[in-house]
Amino acid sequence: MKRHFEEIEQGLKEQVLGMGAVVEEMIHLATKGLLERKEEPLREVHEREKRVNRLHIDIDEGCFKLLALHQPAAQDLRFVMAVVKINSDLERIGDQAVNVAQSTAVLLKQPPLARKLLDIPRMSELASSMLKDSLDAFARKDAELARSVVRRDTEEDKLKSEAFHELMHIMQSDSSTIQRALGLILIARNLERIAAHATNVAEDVIFMTLGKDIRHHAEDEER
Amino acid sequence: MKRHFEEIEQGLKEQVLGMGAVVEEMIHLATKGLLERKEEPLREVHEREKRVNRLHIDIDEGCFKLLALHQPAAQDLRFVMAVVKINSDLERIGDQAVNVAQSTAVLLKQPPLARKLLDIPRMSELASSMLKDSLDAFARKDAELARSVVRRDTEEDKLKSEAFHELMHIMQSDSSTIQRALGLILIARNLERIAAHATNVAEDVIFMTLGKDIRHHAEDEER
Repeated sequence: MKRHFEEIEQGLKEQVLGMGAVVEEMIHLATKGLLERKEEPLREVHEREKRVNRLHIDIDEGCFKLLALHQPAAQDLRFVMAVVKINSDLERIGDQAVNVAQSTAVLLKQPPLARKLLDIPRMSELASSMLKDSLDAFARKDAELARSVVRRDTEEDKLKSEAFHELMHIMQSDSSTIQRALGLILIARNLERIAAHATNVAEDVIFMTLGKDIRHHAEDEER
Repeated sequence: MKRHFEEIEQGLKEQVLGMGAVVEEMIHLATKGLLERKEEPLREVHEREKRVNRLHIDIDEGCFKLLALHQPAAQDLRFVMAVVKINSDLERIGDQAVNVAQSTAVLLKQPPLARKLLDIPRMSELASSMLKDSLDAFARKDAELARSVVRRDTEEDKLKSEAFHELMHIMQSDSSTIQRALGLILIARNLERIAAHATNVAEDVIFMTLGKDIRHHAEDEER
């Protein structure tokens, strides 16, 4: 029984990492479409969404079966609980990448803004690296790496606020930019959401590895 | 043992419904602040967030203990899995209500727009009713009511798109409205996210009740 459990656990882990790789690609493709002003990568984002949705359901089913048939305890149970939550965050990251692709498709119908994309490429890189590291932390049960992801989230938040204010000023100084600047504001927000979901993944890895719930920590200290 | 399990299950259920009631209030208070242009309800939103964060952690711990100590199967296991996910959606609804309160606080520093709030009050009502019904469906294990929540999600999406386009036109015709219209666009988006999370809750209730995963159903049919 124990041997069998480990095999299923390993299978689930590989599915999560596979799903993580697909959503990483989706972020990359959506950003590539935006930066290179090409439609083909955007179509590929939509293609990959179907695979993500399939994995989302399969991984949930795998967790359910593992719990029903093997009644894991302690660390094994923390692993399954973490997978249930990581699965949901990865699916939402995929949704956000689809949103970026959709906003980009609208932007490509118009000429680029003079100020171009501001810090958006940097936001995309940071969000991707946070996702990648949170998945590596999951694969290696590396709580330190996971903590470094949590720390990077404020940087993404800062970039989003800056992009937001700059884009608002661009709109205010030239009303012909409004639609495009609005598209970029939404994209910046999607990227910030991706970073927030990567942070959730990292928090789940910390819980899985150390058995410690670090969420809402700042508020806890206030009480 | 069985008796004890039922007591813990009942306790978890009450915690979820309690958390649901708090986040419902947060939506109501944030919207009240916006409609009546008052700051006091916005402060109350932030107050309640602490309680939501505490419940978020407590409910997760309760689920973990239930799984570790009682190894539930079949319907009982589906209940715990549903609670884990519903817990996460409720916490995010709370976050979105906080976002509405934050955008509203900025809006209150300026005079209202001539076109005022468009369909935003209706969006808030619809999102609240979806949340309320998804929680009632959870309490009563009512899959039919849960399905009705899932069906209403497209209506909220439509209202958000309409608000988005109207607000973009308002910005384009009068650049002095840009900051305020942008605030309302973000609020419309938050309300649409609340409706989407309520839909997730309803989908989890359907899975819990019928053992059927209806998520990503449209895409499944395409394949």
